Amino acid sequence: MPDVQAPMPPANQRPADLKEACLQAAREVIAEQGVEGLSMRDVSRKLHISHQAPYRHFASRDHLLAEIMRRCFVDFARHLDASAHPLETPAAGTGLDRLAAMGLAYMDYAAAKPLEYRLMFGTPWPEPASHPELVKHAVHAFDILRNHLRQQHGRSPAQTERADLDALFIWSTLHGLATIMQANVLPHLALSERVMSQAQTHVMQHMGVALAASANGASA
Amino acid sequence: MPDVQAPMPPANQRPADLKEACLQAAREVIAEQGVEGLSMRDVSRKLHISHQAPYRHFASRDHLLAEIMRRCFVDFARHLDASAHPLETPAAGTGLDRLAAMGLAYMDYAAAKPLEYRLMFGTPWPEPASHPELVKHAVHAFDILRNHLRQQHGRSPAQTERADLDALFIWSTLHGLATIMQANVLPHLALSERVMSQAQTHVMQHMGVALAASANGASA
Repeated sequence: MPDVQAPMPPANQRPADLKEACLQAAREVIAEQGVEGLSMRDVSRKLHISHQAPYRHFASRDHLLAEIMRRCFVDFARHLDASAHPLETPAAGTGLDRLAAMGLAYMDYAAAKPLEYRLMFGTPWPEPASHPELVKHAVHAFDILRNHLRQQHGRSPAQTERADLDALFIWSTLHGLATIMQANVLPHLALSERVMSQAQTHVMQHMGVALAASANGASA
Repeated sequence: MPDVQAPMPPANQRPADLKEACLQAAREVIAEQGVEGLSMRDVSRKLHISHQAPYRHFASRDHLLAEIMRRCFVDFARHLDASAHPLETPAAGTGLDRLAAMGLAYMDYAAAKPLEYRLMFGTPWPEPASHPELVKHAVHAFDILRNHLRQQHGRSPAQTERADLDALFIWSTLHGLATIMQANVLPHLALSERVMSQAQTHVMQHMGVALAASANGASA
């Protein structure tokens, strides 16, 4: 085992690299054992460093986990932002077109990064009061959707409420779809290939119909 | 510690009671430590019985877990069935009324029994091939919704596909709503009390609008 006190430590024991190495090792532990299995001891064992070494960068296992989750939200928000402004021009597409693009981006992210998705939305958080940066970035990800809807609906209190409610409807539908597509029971439901291949489009079309009807009702 | 070989074992060590006691103890372990923390050793420790005793009723930790999950699906299906046939008369209410009643029953169950809900829909299953009874009861719960929709839509291949797709839409929306209402980020989104109190109604109304539009489109 390498000695962290040695004069020429390996790369993953230099300060900046060690922090990143701990984060990477923790993600591997989570992928292998689930988030409940994560401990500082596992991380140091995986990196062949002393049990104290990870504490130079993270005050506790929960601080390490909160930083992993925070980075997931940063990555996710960047991905949604890119879809919402595909051409860098606010006029590109109607409100519903841009919502549809954001919905597709959401689904793509959940399918491409299931571990990250589960960490953000399927895992209990470490005590939020101790991790304000995690909270901030999670709220920011939701605000990408909410702010888009508020721009569409308007800024009166009633319009703001409707934007928030629509944001919860959209998030429910997308989150539900993303998770049931990975549900244990799904392969046993004898759904045809056509149904499986159309499921995402069908759900998102239904979501669009409901939002369009609601928008027409509100503007009538 | 009691001796399981004693001539007059305590109640929780008689065959039928021991099986139920193991299931109950396992649920407590899951509630305390999460499902990843469940082991046969925890169960026997909690019941003050020998480490071998639970194996009289469950071949492995996964068999114990599968039986807990199976019972959740049985309980959940009974709850949905009761809502779908509130008056024991098929003519009571329209198809959409009965769907709405089923949706409310779904949401009530998720809110009242979060542990059971998470075990069914938020927890990796033990290897399904080894637990056909779990699969059977999980499929049955989905079929309550699917069969209702097939009765509404009709039995042609295209109608059956549409029923399956609508079932996935409904399940996505309800499952998404049930889980985001318990999401870590929710309390930090500064949603008003009115929005929080209206969220479920709003989402279910939107779902109803989409389904009604789809039904009208199909019959037109």
